[in-house]
Amino acid sequence: MQQIIDFIIELDKLKGVTRKTRPLGLDRYENSAEHSWQIALLAASLAPFANTAIDIHRVIGMLLVHDIGEIDTGDTIVYAEGGWEERKAAEHAAVKRIFGLLPEAQGAAFLALWEEFEKGETAEACFAHAADRAMPVLLNLANNGQSWRENGISHDRVVKRIGPPIQAGCPALWEYLEARLETARKNGWFGA
Amino acid sequence: MQQIIDFIIELDKLKGVTRKTRPLGLDRYENSAEHSWQIALLAASLAPFANTAIDIHRVIGMLLVHDIGEIDTGDTIVYAEGGWEERKAAEHAAVKRIFGLLPEAQGAAFLALWEEFEKGETAEACFAHAADRAMPVLLNLANNGQSWRENGISHDRVVKRIGPPIQAGCPALWEYLEARLETARKNGWFGA
Repeated sequence: MQQIIDFIIELDKLKGVTRKTRPLGLDRYENSAEHSWQIALLAASLAPFANTAIDIHRVIGMLLVHDIGEIDTGDTIVYAEGGWEERKAAEHAAVKRIFGLLPEAQGAAFLALWEEFEKGETAEACFAHAADRAMPVLLNLANNGQSWRENGISHDRVVKRIGPPIQAGCPALWEYLEARLETARKNGWFGA
Repeated sequence: MQQIIDFIIELDKLKGVTRKTRPLGLDRYENSAEHSWQIALLAASLAPFANTAIDIHRVIGMLLVHDIGEIDTGDTIVYAEGGWEERKAAEHAAVKRIFGLLPEAQGAAFLALWEEFEKGETAEACFAHAADRAMPVLLNLANNGQSWRENGISHDRVVKRIGPPIQAGCPALWEYLEARLETARKNGWFGA
């Protein structure tokens, strides 16, 4: 039991890892723990729009654990250029440390979910990536492009970076977003 | 698709609903969104300690949605006396409104999870309650009783209020907590 308690207390640190988006109407930045909660529910809600049969429970599991490595590395905005391999290696080492706090079987199960998400090869991982990538876009569309403007992110960069994974994981969602991103561009909600 | 987006944007408000516990090492109060994430992972980690066979996916689903009614009502500390029926009725109305934003089948599925949790009759609901009740205790045990001291909560009140549901849902967890609560009492970590 103590191993599980040590793990869950370690997870508390993810509440202090901040992202670049602000929750709607709040002054502070969003943290990776509440983000993980929200995308788990986004994926659950979107499940009927999946292109192929998926195990939504595995999707939810992946989304709940996918950011845990940031406890050691911090969050990196998806539009960062370069350095991804090093960051992912550091996150991998971090989750091995953190899931290693647990009894072996449970730690291995979480690690398998994390690795499946990172590899991005299964239908479930692709769907999970679509939810993860879509959420900050949806928040930006709801707050006049706050993090795009603050970080100088152009419409072109958003479309190129998040279009392919969302299209691959949930085409109906990308069709919806593409139209709204075009409106946002006309509204001047992008940086750069 | 627009219905799902409206729902997920509405959920953003849960990030602004604050509880009485502070994340470890942070100055601010915890919010109900990050709390929901953490207890979903606590339940997943604790699953091998369940007393009976449980569907852990339904437990996780319940924990992800159980606090959504607080978007309209705010959080109430578990040690509040009286007024629970009114608060629960208000939360029920709130989740009907919020899940009602979704396409009917998805909204009904979330509402069924919320209601199962509230009724607390199934093995899954009991296990979910144990995780929900245990988490603030675990945080208090890790921060010298911060919310107990700030809110004048006695050892006796904690044991009476959270002992039965945790014992019912996950006896091994209660056995662990009971011993740690006794140590906390000797350390003077309670209020009142």
